[in-house]
Amino acid sequence: MSLFEERLNSYVDMINKAASESVSSLVFAGRESSGLDKMLEAMSYSLENGGKRIRPALTLEFCRICGGDIKSALPLAVAVEMIHTYSLIHDDLPCMDDDDMRRGKPSNHKVFGYANALLAGDGLLTLAFETVLSASDLSYEQKAKAGLELAKAAGCAGMIAGQVMDLENETKQADIDCVTTTDKLKTGEMIKVSAVLGCIAANADERKIKAAETYCEKIGLAFQIVDDILDVTSSEAELGKPIGSDNENGKSTYVSLLGLEKSNETALKLTDEAKNSLEIFGKDGEFLLELADSLISRRN
Amino acid sequence: MSLFEERLNSYVDMINKAASESVSSLVFAGRESSGLDKMLEAMSYSLENGGKRIRPALTLEFCRICGGDIKSALPLAVAVEMIHTYSLIHDDLPCMDDDDMRRGKPSNHKVFGYANALLAGDGLLTLAFETVLSASDLSYEQKAKAGLELAKAAGCAGMIAGQVMDLENETKQADIDCVTTTDKLKTGEMIKVSAVLGCIAANADERKIKAAETYCEKIGLAFQIVDDILDVTSSEAELGKPIGSDNENGKSTYVSLLGLEKSNETALKLTDEAKNSLEIFGKDGEFLLELADSLISRRN
Repeated sequence: MSLFEERLNSYVDMINKAASESVSSLVFAGRESSGLDKMLEAMSYSLENGGKRIRPALTLEFCRICGGDIKSALPLAVAVEMIHTYSLIHDDLPCMDDDDMRRGKPSNHKVFGYANALLAGDGLLTLAFETVLSASDLSYEQKAKAGLELAKAAGCAGMIAGQVMDLENETKQADIDCVTTTDKLKTGEMIKVSAVLGCIAANADERKIKAAETYCEKIGLAFQIVDDILDVTSSEAELGKPIGSDNENGKSTYVSLLGLEKSNETALKLTDEAKNSLEIFGKDGEFLLELADSLISRRN
Repeated sequence: MSLFEERLNSYVDMINKAASESVSSLVFAGRESSGLDKMLEAMSYSLENGGKRIRPALTLEFCRICGGDIKSALPLAVAVEMIHTYSLIHDDLPCMDDDDMRRGKPSNHKVFGYANALLAGDGLLTLAFETVLSASDLSYEQKAKAGLELAKAAGCAGMIAGQVMDLENETKQADIDCVTTTDKLKTGEMIKVSAVLGCIAANADERKIKAAETYCEKIGLAFQIVDDILDVTSSEAELGKPIGSDNENGKSTYVSLLGLEKSNETALKLTDEAKNSLEIFGKDGEFLLELADSLISRRN
């Protein structure tokens, strides 16, 4: 195993363990209610359902290379993953993208019903802020700043706006600017804030935060372009979800607008730019260099 | 107009103005998208749809009587109302209580569709934390503490747990303990935190926070009992929503479990206890004394 894989695995283990404990450790009056048990199970089901954990890994790694203690950033990493997970649960609901499968397993509402899926999403979104604001190794200033950045990135001027635009794009011929803005909002903002939260945990200076943002903007867009590419070149078995859905829905994507070759080129160019932005971190940037490469060469 | 009414009206005006500005002032790339306009309109529609504004008024008043500047507490008051509003939007969805009317007007999803209602709720929940954590007159410590209390009260060990139990109670014969726990979680936690946030804005000491909590626990339960009483004694015109729905659904309520007379007695007793807990505030408690009385003598 390469050093890159070793570190990534160790991050994923830390995140999975902390994520799992975050829900199971909740104690309160009424907890014994069987309905509540089911809703909390719904929260755990999606939170613990694998995923690449790229976002929380960015939080931990940027904390590390900015000279912080990654343990202090762990609650922030888990919070990022909670918000990502809630967005997937709500996105899969019948009134939204209406997806039956997620990461190779039945989506949340298919297992727990609509009401539990809705509330599990609400619960994870709220728990994310509780987790940030009760992070024991951070100062009030760090907690308040991290929570604010997270709220902005996840909110109606960030991820939620992207979700709205994404739904809207299904009913119109979106151009490349519109698709890019949609992706920046829908996935880019959360990827960026994941890194910024790691920087905040390490009290990083503005230049490092700026570099982290540039890196994430570039890999975020590249990631989305690769998603679109895989939607036409991968298989359901590899991807863990049906392929060709964008094409079926007549939805504008990088591939439909730019073609496969130009999409590949653009993803590569963005990845190079992302890697260049890491110069400030010197040799410490190695993990993130490999991460950028791994994200465009992925098959799922 | 009594002094009580005058102050309450001035609070409601402040809250309405700030709530209205909170959504309309959002500026970001993509904002011109017509889909986004509609979703933001959905947020405003419910946030600006009247309501008694009891919760945010508690925030402002507790800030005032604890010696704080109510302007500093205004963002916290608005945040409380945003969370209350999001919970109503999601509660009204077909997969939850499936209510077509709210405060005498069509519920959010009836006007804007399911996807917009879902996202408007998510947006308000997230914006609540953004609003707390960017409150300009509070210290990082105050913001972090206020945000944490809010997350706990609104979360899956608070309001959301109450919502789950409430749904569960529709399918079983809940006893009085279960109904009480449900109400404490579903509405009590948010009422309590409304007051606590005002105390935090004023840097109140522990004794005052404790008094605020006791007051709110008592008026919160009394409020819920009166809700159940009005569901059998009021009219749709007075209440702004259909009456008799609890009875129709065979749902356990204070009235069905205790009878009308004992329910009235209990609400009165709780109100007296609430008023007694205000002793520590001396003459400054007058507004809250009148508020407690007004909540049990209300007709809607």
